[in-house]
Amino acid sequence: MFAASADNIVTGSKLLMELLGADSSARAEIAERMRAAEHAGDDATHAILHQLNASFITPFDREDIYRLASSLDDIMDFMEEAVDLVVLYQVEQLPKGVEQQVEVLSRAAELTAEAMPNLRTLAHLPEFWIEVNRLENQADQIHRKLLAHLFNGKYDAIEVLKLKQIVDVLEEAADAFEKVANTIETIAVKES
Amino acid sequence: MFAASADNIVTGSKLLMELLGADSSARAEIAERMRAAEHAGDDATHAILHQLNASFITPFDREDIYRLASSLDDIMDFMEEAVDLVVLYQVEQLPKGVEQQVEVLSRAAELTAEAMPNLRTLAHLPEFWIEVNRLENQADQIHRKLLAHLFNGKYDAIEVLKLKQIVDVLEEAADAFEKVANTIETIAVKES
Amino acid sequence: MFAASADNIVTGSKLLMELLGADSSARAEIAERMRAAEHAGDDATHAILHQLNASFITPFDREDIYRLASSLDDIMDFMEEAVDLVVLYQVEQLPKGVEQQVEVLSRAAELTAEAMPNLRTLAHLPEFWIEVNRLENQADQIHRKLLAHLFNGKYDAIEVLKLKQIVDVLEEAADAFEKVANTIETIAVKES
Repeated sequence: MFAASADNIVTGSKLLMELLGADSSARAEIAERMRAAEHAGDDATHAILHQLNASFITPFDREDIYRLASSLDDIMDFMEEAVDLVVLYQVEQLPKGVEQQVEVLSRAAELTAEAMPNLRTLAHLPEFWIEVNRLENQADQIHRKLLAHLFNGKYDAIEVLKLKQIVDVLEEAADAFEKVANTIETIAVKES
Repeated sequence: MFAASADNIVTGSKLLMELLGADSSARAEIAERMRAAEHAGDDATHAILHQLNASFITPFDREDIYRLASSLDDIMDFMEEAVDLVVLYQVEQLPKGVEQQVEVLSRAAELTAEAMPNLRTLAHLPEFWIEVNRLENQADQIHRKLLAHLFNGKYDAIEVLKLKQIVDVLEEAADAFEKVANTIETIAVKES
Repeated sequence: MFAASADNIVTGSKLLMELLGADSSARAEIAERMRAAEHAGDDATHAILHQLNASFITPFDREDIYRLASSLDDIMDFMEEAVDLVVLYQVEQLPKGVEQQVEVLSRAAELTAEAMPNLRTLAHLPEFWIEVNRLENQADQIHRKLLAHLFNGKYDAIEVLKLKQIVDVLEEAADAFEKVANTIETIAVKES
């Protein structure tokens, strides 16, 4: 079930990437597909939590499963919010760093989808969490530079506010990937 | 004890609503009453956590009780912060959507106060968490539209910053209600 | 191991204080030392979580240890972020209230470093958590007044955005100290 949730995040990250190259007429339709993906994510999360709560015995610690499901759900919510805000605020041009943010998120999404089936065998998990932690540090650097760029005086204040909110939400998605990685590490070390 | 905490939130949501119709002279006095309600909330939270920590056996899982008490406490804190910021920033006119935000919070507060006594019998809880999740989605839509409205160019940038912080804090209150609903669902499914 | 993490926070709070009196040429070097302290903090956190996950029996509840380590780590991250943003945004002059924020953080850091060794004997812990809660309330008041000051019209909107982000991050550090205090209280009451 975690695999379904992670696959859905890959779909979301592809829609985010698609949005960056789309003109305003195509954006509304991408936002629509994003909303559908987010609903599918909600269903996956709900199924995990329901089975977790109804089970007396769980494969891993209950709190770890809860944390993993919640963080996966958060990633999807933040990605959907970013797309929705771009449409809602009628943003003409996103600053260049946003593409770098989305590339990092896409890479983290792929790694997460690949790692989920390995929870059964616990194989190759350290590579996963080390790499996602590295990606999160990279996202953090991109994010701070983006903010410095927004504040450098070329944008009008209201435009800064709009763009800041979008890049902040993408940074929150990167943070949520780090939480996923930390939880996977917790699970793997306990089991080993 | 959760009932006391939830009743206090109903009081807080009524004070929020009162604030919307009040002129600036009445606002300070409402903020004072809000502060008192928040302190009462702190005491209720503290009593719950103290009894939780001192108990060897608890009616529900310890982490669920902890999460429920914290989320109820957060709701009160966010509502108090919103009132305080309106006074502190000397906001003349709140945009119309704020009233919609407060209406959703009031409805969620009432439902939460009604649901708490049902934790004993576990009756009618699904209606509660489904409805609060629906209200949180509604709050989310209102919040995003409010931000788009603030950013549409009619407000000066500093005014946008003030108002944005207030509507963001109210949105955080709505998110905390959703956490309450999710925790109630967790408790109910485990017990069933 | 918590003591190492808390001592590191004291180092961080001293660097923050140093930053306030430094001219722009000295700032980059302080940021460099701050980054080193933050890396040392990451290592300390990682060591705690690794030992926690690898242990079958733990001195306190697993979730409490996890929460304590995470909150200590968050404090360091927020302090490092504040220093980095001051350098990155090339802030000329920080408003006066920032010094008050940093003083409160320094005091909380010292108290936390003093309290950690007492986790063994559980002595003097109530004084600790009561005082840190008081400091967090004080930080909250300073923060709200700082925002009102930033919004009072003397600053340009972009400057407000830069400064707001720095004071918000410092407020998040204060909140994380409160989480540390609450977790210490939880641990102490369970053990008593």
